[in-house]
Amino acid sequence: MMKSVSALDRIRVVLSHTFHPGNIGAVARAMKTMGLGRLYLVNPQRFPDAEATTRATGAADVLERAQVCATLDEALQGTVLAVATTSRRRDLSHPLFTPRAAAPLLLAEAQHGEVALLFGAETSGLTNAELDRCQMLLMIPTNPEFASLNLASAVQVLAYELRAALPDGALPSAEEEGNRASFEEVEGFYGHLEQAMMASGFLDPASPKRLMHRLRRLFARARLEREEINILRGILTSLAPRDKK
Amino acid sequence: MMKSVSALDRIRVVLSHTFHPGNIGAVARAMKTMGLGRLYLVNPQRFPDAEATTRATGAADVLERAQVCATLDEALQGTVLAVATTSRRRDLSHPLFTPRAAAPLLLAEAQHGEVALLFGAETSGLTNAELDRCQMLLMIPTNPEFASLNLASAVQVLAYELRAALPDGALPSAEEEGNRASFEEVEGFYGHLEQAMMASGFLDPASPKRLMHRLRRLFARARLEREEINILRGILTSLAPRDKK
Repeated sequence: MMKSVSALDRIRVVLSHTFHPGNIGAVARAMKTMGLGRLYLVNPQRFPDAEATTRATGAADVLERAQVCATLDEALQGTVLAVATTSRRRDLSHPLFTPRAAAPLLLAEAQHGEVALLFGAETSGLTNAELDRCQMLLMIPTNPEFASLNLASAVQVLAYELRAALPDGALPSAEEEGNRASFEEVEGFYGHLEQAMMASGFLDPASPKRLMHRLRRLFARARLEREEINILRGILTSLAPRDKK
Repeated sequence: MMKSVSALDRIRVVLSHTFHPGNIGAVARAMKTMGLGRLYLVNPQRFPDAEATTRATGAADVLERAQVCATLDEALQGTVLAVATTSRRRDLSHPLFTPRAAAPLLLAEAQHGEVALLFGAETSGLTNAELDRCQMLLMIPTNPEFASLNLASAVQVLAYELRAALPDGALPSAEEEGNRASFEEVEGFYGHLEQAMMASGFLDPASPKRLMHRLRRLFARARLEREEINILRGILTSLAPRDKK
């Protein structure tokens, strides 16, 4: 657990030549929602910028700590692995991974040292010189007819995959639920229901099996709680004719 | 393959009371990158709007085909499953899934009928009344200290998981099951049940909410089939007093 958190702390997001400052802010927010905090900006068009701050909302701290670098090499200083992200197929074949396949590898690498996730400029993407500095290529699966993933969306998907790959990436443990009804309680309800349906004429006592079977199947799927049994039996009681008149 | 594509075609994204039109545009783009195209807007603050169009970039067609609805019920017409997305823990426990665990289930459901992914308003999230209309709850794993996922980012993650869950080859054979009841059929049953309980005096018309909420939650877990609705309504009808004597 501690180790995983520190793995995320060793992963930096590097944005190269970002054009819109709003995208920088949205990236900061996307990072922080998944527990990433280290942003590097290579030669951004405008930064700092009010639009970046606005789009970051609660992630202003990520922007404040962002490192602005003049070159990609500067942003990659001290890393042991640089991973490029692309939405289109490239000629030069680095080993190509989906984010899902890559995420556990990246977390494992981050145990050893700093890892960089590199994203190119919005329209032009990564240059070949930038790709040359990377050792892995990630491609997010997209609609082949419209692969135009927003910069922050691409960061969001990667950050999400990293978080989901954390050992504790599953959901927090089951919430407080009501007490499951016991076998006897459930059977008591079925008996009550059957009797009520016979009394009303809905159930033919000569062949009760099929209908009860269907109803058992329905309530079995619901996995009844004790309090729910009480409610259902209360409804049956209230609906039953009080006494013969 | 053809079948999988049509599974995505049967999944609608429903945004309730969206405040910023820019978010609507960003959602449209996020959807389209993953192959989703059907957007429903429940009572949006501003739509259509230039900012929505700008943020949609290449996904203007999704905006153009968007259905604007006055109520959530209208947006859920014809669906067999409605899935709520939340970033915070809720008391009321619908079955809770990660997007990853849910994606294959949603694609399988979409073989049978229309599926809705519901997202609440930016700041306030889903209301309890909105949650009551859903049968599943998705929670995207996030940084516990900053779970503030942008609306489009949440849609992006879900759409990404759906795409990633598309089977490459053979589809899982549709299991033998009955036809799921539609939203209208399920709501019709709830109305019938409520009315019967009021008539019997079990439900206090002055404060019907909590009891109906519990019963909705119970039957939501069961995912009712059409024939089961018919049986349940048959039971209610048979138990109701024929006429006042």
